[in-house]
Amino acid sequence: MSEGWNEADLLGLLTHGPSIGSGPGLAMVEIGPGDDAAVVELQENRYSICADLITENVHFDLEYFPLRAVGFKAIAVNISDLAAMSSTPLFATVTIAAPKSLDLLDLLAGIKSAAETYGIAVIGGDLSASNTLTVSVTAFGINNRSAMLRSCALAGETIMVTGPLGGSQAGLKVLQSGQPQNEMETSLANRHLFPVARVREGEALGRIGTRAAIDISDGLLIDLWRLCDASGVGFDLSEVPIAAGATLDDALSGGEDYELLFTTDDPQLVARTFSEEGLLPPTTIGRIVADVGSRTLYGELCTPKGYLH
Amino acid sequence: MSEGWNEADLLGLLTHGPSIGSGPGLAMVEIGPGDDAAVVELQENRYSICADLITENVHFDLEYFPLRAVGFKAIAVNISDLAAMSSTPLFATVTIAAPKSLDLLDLLAGIKSAAETYGIAVIGGDLSASNTLTVSVTAFGINNRSAMLRSCALAGETIMVTGPLGGSQAGLKVLQSGQPQNEMETSLANRHLFPVARVREGEALGRIGTRAAIDISDGLLIDLWRLCDASGVGFDLSEVPIAAGATLDDALSGGEDYELLFTTDDPQLVARTFSEEGLLPPTTIGRIVADVGSRTLYGELCTPKGYLH
Repeated sequence: MSEGWNEADLLGLLTHGPSIGSGPGLAMVEIGPGDDAAVVELQENRYSICADLITENVHFDLEYFPLRAVGFKAIAVNISDLAAMSSTPLFATVTIAAPKSLDLLDLLAGIKSAAETYGIAVIGGDLSASNTLTVSVTAFGINNRSAMLRSCALAGETIMVTGPLGGSQAGLKVLQSGQPQNEMETSLANRHLFPVARVREGEALGRIGTRAAIDISDGLLIDLWRLCDASGVGFDLSEVPIAAGATLDDALSGGEDYELLFTTDDPQLVARTFSEEGLLPPTTIGRIVADVGSRTLYGELCTPKGYLH
Repeated sequence: MSEGWNEADLLGLLTHGPSIGSGPGLAMVEIGPGDDAAVVELQENRYSICADLITENVHFDLEYFPLRAVGFKAIAVNISDLAAMSSTPLFATVTIAAPKSLDLLDLLAGIKSAAETYGIAVIGGDLSASNTLTVSVTAFGINNRSAMLRSCALAGETIMVTGPLGGSQAGLKVLQSGQPQNEMETSLANRHLFPVARVREGEALGRIGTRAAIDISDGLLIDLWRLCDASGVGFDLSEVPIAAGATLDDALSGGEDYELLFTTDDPQLVARTFSEEGLLPPTTIGRIVADVGSRTLYGELCTPKGYLH
């Protein structure tokens, strides 16, 4: 381990393995590390809990990333994890390590804006000086219904996503090359800076009994790969909805779209439910196959692409 | 705000003010930011939640601070906050931002060791590369009894602490000057590296109805100051228990001792309860007075000393 590490190696210790520790809390853990959020069973009620951090020069560059967006996004990426569990967001804690020279009011305004957007209470936090800006959020949501897990996809199910992909990556490229020049570029940039977590979609999916879902944070292929690994299945990807202004590669591997990817045996029920609830229509992108080694894009075997922090 | 910030200015936005945000979670917040942990009322059950981070070159220097201790301490300081609420620890989430060159196995071993020491389940986390090592923990505990608050100290009550103070600061000085040379220096260094959170003391205090407490993280004077500010009272400090090997200044201002400071109208009941439960005897250090401006040490007016990150 001394030559460095990558996320895949080490996340296992905190995020793939069994919950570490002991005591009465351990017995209350229904779903431990490895899904979008943990689920703890507290007497009659079930809650999902997740933790994600974003850090300077890895997740954002302050040259083009406003502090307000840092605060907003730190919350939103956690809310997206709750949405992928069909959990209704309730609370969050926020810790900030930041250079003393930074004006944090914009960062805090972004946190407040996200808390209002997603209807959550920020119930605690901590702040420290540091050389590098890091914002860490732990979010809590209630599950009145079964949680949607990465491990529950079944062969024959239809794979759907809640919206077109690649917009966030295209927006990142706009930001890296300077100011947005027109309405579409502004819209793409905002997609990257102020991601939309699909809370109502996650709630609706849980209500109609959807069992498998993941949010697309690292890229369609890599996140679908993770879901299929967890479920012991393969996939046949026949359609990739590309956001206006994005490329196929952005859509497959860009990441940070925070759309929900889910599987269902009744895509028409999903479409009807989304329509009834005034949600954007979901898109069918392929189907789950039984052979765990059979993972195809447009009929060709593929490998996951995406970025690992 | 553009010339820099200090913790006192900005923590208010996340940790002194009302919970920010909206939605159903807000109505479940019984105690929001500003105490050692938040308390949320989830139907019949009450939980405390707190979040603290530790970061390189502010809270520790990797020159003398082993990674195992970084992991242990990140958990322990949060458990100490729960103890100060009389909350029994259940779960934690952990996020780590770390340079790629660091061998994180020791850090994770420290986290695991603390989770076992305090009987908690680590239920989720995140890991990212960063220039600076930052470990952020959110901890959750259950309150079967009323939480002990900073705001509930009453004039006439006796002020007590769970143990002698200054050992952590003395240990820091040992570490900064090289390797410990004898058993006492090793013990002081360990006091700094592997702090003991007073969970059983906090539980016992809550059971006998203790209403006001704080954990000593930034220093006796500054933490007592905070408790008295929150309660609108003053204090008369007549005794300062100094850890063997430490100075009076270490005890007053060193911080990171993680002993509990609490107030009581029945110090004998506290002493008897601690004795019955096999806990170390608590020490009376003074009493709470009604005049909020009367804050004295050995009969002289004093000001808070301690460090703010």
